[in-house]
Order: sequence, then structure tokens, then C-alpha cells
Amino acid sequence: MNNQLLVASHAAGKGTEADAVFSILQKANAAIAKYGKANVVNGSIGAIYDEEEKFATLYAVEDYLRKLPAQELMNYAPIAGLPEFHAAAIKQTFQGCQPEDTYARAIATPGGTGAVRHVINNYLEQGQKVLIPDWAWGPYRTIAAEHLRGIETYNLFDEEYRFNLNSIMEKTEELLKTQDNIVIIFNTPAHNPTGYSITLEDWRKLIGFFKDCAVDKKKKIVPLLDMAYIDYAGTPEETRGFMKLFGGLPENILVTIAYSMSKSYLIYGLRSGALIGLSSSEEVIEEFYRVNVCSNRGIWSNGTRCAQKLLADVENNPALKAKIEEQRAFYSNLLFERAQIFIREAAEVDLQLTPYQSGFFITVPTANAQMVAERLMEERIFVVPLKKGVRVAICGIPTYKVTGIAEKIKKAL
Amino acid sequence: MNNQLLVASHAAGKGTEADAVFSILQKANAAIAKYGKANVVNGSIGAIYDEEEKFATLYAVEDYLRKLPAQELMNYAPIAGLPEFHAAAIKQTFQGCQPEDTYARAIATPGGTGAVRHVINNYLEQGQKVLIPDWAWGPYRTIAAEHLRGIETYNLFDEEYRFNLNSIMEKTEELLKTQDNIVIIFNTPAHNPTGYSITLEDWRKLIGFFKDCAVDKKKKIVPLLDMAYIDYAGTPEETRGFMKLFGGLPENILVTIAYSMSKSYLIYGLRSGALIGLSSSEEVIEEFYRVNVCSNRGIWSNGTRCAQKLLADVENNPALKAKIEEQRAFYSNLLFERAQIFIREAAEVDLQLTPYQSGFFITVPTANAQMVAERLMEERIFVVPLKKGVRVAICGIPTYKVTGIAEKIKKAL
Repeated sequence: MNNQLLVASHAAGKGTEADAVFSILQKANAAIAKYGKANVVNGSIGAIYDEEEKFATLYAVEDYLRKLPAQELMNYAPIAGLPEFHAAAIKQTFQGCQPEDTYARAIATPGGTGAVRHVINNYLEQGQKVLIPDWAWGPYRTIAAEHLRGIETYNLFDEEYRFNLNSIMEKTEELLKTQDNIVIIFNTPAHNPTGYSITLEDWRKLIGFFKDCAVDKKKKIVPLLDMAYIDYAGTPEETRGFMKLFGGLPENILVTIAYSMSKSYLIYGLRSGALIGLSSSEEVIEEFYRVNVCSNRGIWSNGTRCAQKLLADVENNPALKAKIEEQRAFYSNLLFERAQIFIREAAEVDLQLTPYQSGFFITVPTANAQMVAERLMEERIFVVPLKKGVRVAICGIPTYKVTGIAEKIKKAL
Repeated sequence: MNNQLLVASHAAGKGTEADAVFSILQKANAAIAKYGKANVVNGSIGAIYDEEEKFATLYAVEDYLRKLPAQELMNYAPIAGLPEFHAAAIKQTFQGCQPEDTYARAIATPGGTGAVRHVINNYLEQGQKVLIPDWAWGPYRTIAAEHLRGIETYNLFDEEYRFNLNSIMEKTEELLKTQDNIVIIFNTPAHNPTGYSITLEDWRKLIGFFKDCAVDKKKKIVPLLDMAYIDYAGTPEETRGFMKLFGGLPENILVTIAYSMSKSYLIYGLRSGALIGLSSSEEVIEEFYRVNVCSNRGIWSNGTRCAQKLLADVENNPALKAKIEEQRAFYSNLLFERAQIFIREAAEVDLQLTPYQSGFFITVPTANAQMVAERLMEERIFVVPLKKGVRVAICGIPTYKVTGIAEKIKKAL
């Protein structure tokens, strides 16, 4: 059978798997059209919808964008991004928790995805594997495949759903036997799909472990922190405190961070994020900047200027910042309320969840995710089946509809 | 010397060349700060500035964006782009000139750059070369390098600055001896940096030549048309008429088009374009769609929704379309007027130009581009030195300042 018509051999067979989230969303929309919005629970979307199931915005952001001068709204940004955006992205990321004696630089990317792409492409050789959690955002695999890198997974939890440090250490050591470059992805705080956040204590152990690995100077250790949901996970000290531990690392550990404006500003569709690098070596961080800016030029040119300008102005305008933070806190609380209902009801019916602390999603582990998702569809509840569980997007489900979902999932199991 | 600190070996040494356009722009801005706007000619920018040297916008576009519902302004678009955007991008591209019995599909990309990236990555094997003109937009090289593809150049003009069909044929034949996949880039109409447009007659010969190459069914021939400046190059019939010739091609010729909204709507910084494929084979075009959508997911996820929505509405709203076309015609005429002054004065002082028909740039060939650009800087005229000439961005120079530039370039030579 010929599955390669005109594409190059490495691209043959690409894209034959449908996007799970998108296909569930289509089914949910079809059900809404048939039965009415009130009779459908759409737990598939990765964006916040309010209690009326309308697309949620931070009004201060919306107002800001509508009033931007034409040049800021529509002109090019520099290839690397606006310099004031770099400063703002670094400030937003660390919020006072950047360790002393470290160097940080930022490069604008289309959302966090572009940042993940750069790290996987530029810090791994072809054929090498990126280490990701078994519970993970699906596109990590697509990004690795697009760049001819492989995937290895660590178990995020042990059998009691406790953080599985041992698995990370084992898999890292195993990979380091066959490759000198290693990229390890952590999606924390408020992990997608579980809502789990790695604790300060575990970060301390992890960093100790990475230092041990880095004793061999041939090895290049690159933790990649995907922090798309960080601004819904607590106070800056709670969510960023662990970053203070990244001080005094050897030069062959480079901490990389995928910063995204998508969720923090609810501007998913404006495609703005940054790749941030942190190192004890100025030379490493200058190389980081140079190499990744060059990658920008070689893939998508530049980023969305209006979003970059927004972030810069948030950092320069305390009144604007305060308004945005107040409005974001409203949605953060709303997510918390929805989650509390779900978690309380799950406990009542003895439904096992992966450990949720905060974020857009709650996940129910099951070996029969596809079947469970289909049964729930019959009840007009639309959730995304993953390899090891079903993901409920509480970000899109109004509070009154959250009630009862846990029980129905328990029955579907 | 170690120029590789932490990056993977293939990325070592990347980005050591500074971006020429950006560094000239910085110098121009420094001169403006020192001597005042009135005393500086900034011919480095690739965006239209009006007669007051203000960033030019199509007011109907600006007004449209400012009034967009929040959900259209800020929510995600699908990975491939909004379906109504696909239809609109195809309509805009062909404007009645799509040949009968052909299949066309579109995938949203960040500007035209993203589309070029997909074709170079997905239709060439690693190590193979993409064929580009010797007069060319610099980033083609960066894109090829980022994806571990090489570059081969054809001479766009012969020694009398006539279109050099022979060079394209020779180089294509030469490359086809060593590789089965071939991607050939044409930047037409209104080529950057010269403003040249390939004629209908030459297109006829080119297509005949490609058909000859395609007799060997092992060979996969992929012309890539970068048409970023098309909407400033004449009427739809003048600019798109040649596309009618793309009918009845064999299945192993796939025509690809990098469509960009950047210049057509003056929304450079919103990063919206599309990769469009045209084939006589439905199967080839479905593979094209599937493979390139998957690449979207594996690099930048999705595109800027508001720009996609704009294009869709332009095609669905004749009043909006008419307003935009009228405002675009104003700037198209302005470019024409600026160009006429430059070309007339060049003739008066016997200054050789590469053949300009339309577009944002006029180019003066010289073997000493760097030196000429530096001499012009002393006269506070900022142009971009290329390998074989200097590029004058008339898009950014008000009419009254165009006067006299040709003479000063002649002197600098």
C-alpha cells in the first residue's frame, strides 16, 4: 500500500490520527444543536467559559486590545519579539523568584507550543528521546515526531497516585546511558490533564538529582517547564517559590520555561508566548538566545505584536495590572468552586481521581477511557478519552452542570 | 574553539549572522533620533508608511478588528484554521483563475513564512536542496538551514537583466540528477527585492518544462509560489491569469502557494497566511492537507483567529470587501507613484536597476553593496545591502523624499 504520494519519506503517514479533543468537541456541538445547550455538558474545551457558557474574557485585556494604536495592533514585531516584551515575560515568569547570580533571556514564540518546539529541536539530536510524563498533553508527541525525535515516558504517579520521583530518576538515568543531551518535560503547576503541582520538597529532590546527573560534564541536562496554567494555581510565592531553587546550578544544566499568555490573559487565539532560559552561565544563555532567535526566523518569522505589547504594558502600568489580576482571580475562584463540587461528589461516590490541586482539568483514571467516554456521551456528557483516563474540562462547564457528573462517571465505569 | 555550549550539534553556530534588515533599521532610527525625521530617508522597512511617514492601515480592516466579538478576537482557531478561512484563502488566491478539474486545499500558517517552512520540510528529504533565485528574500536560506535542507540558486536574470528561464531549467535538471524531490521557489508577482513579475509567456514555458521533468514518475516536482506582494501588482486577471495554466498537470507535480495576509491587509504583526496546494489528484491534495495540518500541530498549534475571521468575512461581505479594495488601491497607486519617480530619475542619471514592475522594493545591482549602503548612510539614506545589490524600500519612503535618491546612489557607486 502506498501511503506516500508526494511528501518526503519522513512525512509519509503523518497526521493519520484524528485530533481527539477536536472530534469530541464536534460531537458536543452536534448534541447542543440537537438537544439544546441546557441539556448538554461540554467538558471537552480547553478554554474558560463563564456560568452562562459564554467565552470568558478579562475585560481589561479586551478593552486594552480594542484601544491599541494601529501600529501596535498590526505592524511587525522584531524577530525575537519586542525587547520590552522580553523583560515583561521574564518578570511574569519569575515574579521575584529568579535566583541570584543567574541569567535569564526570553524569545517570543507562538504560544507555549512554539517554545516546546524550540527546546525539543535545539537541545536534542535527531533520534534522541524527550522524556515526558505518561499523563501528558498529546501534542508533545506530535512535536517530537515532527522533528524526528522520539518519546520516552516517566510515570507521573505511583500506584497510589503519589508523585513518582523514582520513575523520573530511573528513566533519566536510563536515557543518559544512550544519549548525552536530555530534555525532560514537567507540566507544573496545575498539570494538564490532572491538575497536579509538583511540591517544593519534590523540586528540591529533583534538582539534587539533576545536579548528580550533571557531574558528568559531557551530559547536557535541560528541564523544560511547561507552565501554561500557572496563573490559576495560587499566589506567586506558592506557584513560583520552587524557582528559587534553580540557583547555583552547573553550566551543563539549562532550565527552560515555556511561558504562555494564552490562559493567563485568555487570549489563546492571539498566539503569544515565550521561551525562557535560565542559567548560571552568561555564555550558555547568550547561545540560548542566539540559537532560538535564529529558529524563529527559520520557521514563523515573528510573533503577534499586539499581545507582546499588552504584556509589556501590564508590567509598566500598575493600574492595568491590578485590574487584570482582579479579573483573573474571579475566574481562578470560579475554577476552584467547580473543582470543589466535582471532588466532593467524587469522594461521596468513591470515584478515584488523579490528584487535583488547580487548573482547567480534572482526570478520572480508567483503563477503558474510550468506552467510558462513549457511555457518558449517551448521557450527553462530553469528555476527552486519554490513554489512561478521561479528562473533564471544568474550565468550560458551569457550576450548576458540574453537579452530578462524578456520579455519572462512576456509573459509566 | 567551542561554539557549542549546550545546544545539539546541528544547532551549534546558528544565528551568528545578524539580521541585516533589522540592523539597518536600528541605524536609521538612531539617525532619526539625532537629526530629525525630515532629514533621514529610511528605505529599510518592509511595511507601507504614508506620506507623513506614519504606519499605513486599511481603515476598514482596522475598524473591523476593533469591533470583533471577544470570542473571535481571542479564542482558539482550529489547528488547521477556520474552515471559512480556508475557503476564503483559496478564493483570494485564485480569484476566478483556478483551473477546472483541479483540487485545492488550504492550511492556516503564521504568515507566508510558515507556509514556506511546511513545503521545504515536508516535500524535501533532509540534505536535499531547495532551488531559489539568486535575488531572494534572505530567510529562505534560514528556513532551509533550520530544517537541515540545502540551497541551490538559479539566476533570476541574465546579464541584460532579462528573465533567465535557461538558468532555472539547467539548475532543475542538475538537481533532479541527484534528488527525486524538488522544490523550486518563485517569488512572483512583485518579487522581493526587485519588483519583477514572471510573464504569462514565461509561465507557459516553465510549466511545459515541469511537465517534461515529470515524465519520470519517480520525480516529485513542487513549485512553491511566494505571493506576498500580489495584491499590489495589478488586477486579478493580470496577477493571477497564469494560474489558469496549472490545469491538467500530472499527479507528480504539486503546485504550492504561500498566501499571506501581511501585506494584502497590512496586518503583518497578526501573523496570518496559508499554505495552499493545487493538484489534479484528489488523493495528492488530501495527503497535502493531512500532512501539513499535522505539521501545524507539531510546531505552533494554531493560528491567529481574528485575522482568519477577517478574511472569511471579506469574502462573505461584499461591502467590506469593496471598502478594503478601495483603500488598498490607494496605497497601490502610492507605491506606483513613488516607483515612477525613482525609475525616471534613475534613467536620467543612467543608473542600472533590476527590472521593476510593482511591489514594495526597487533594487540597484552592484558588486559593492555594503560599501554603497555605507556611503548612502553618510547622506542619511538607509537602504539594505544584499549580496548583489542594494534594496530601496519605497514602501516606507514618502514621495517627496524619493526625489534625489537615484542620483545619490549613482554617486555612491
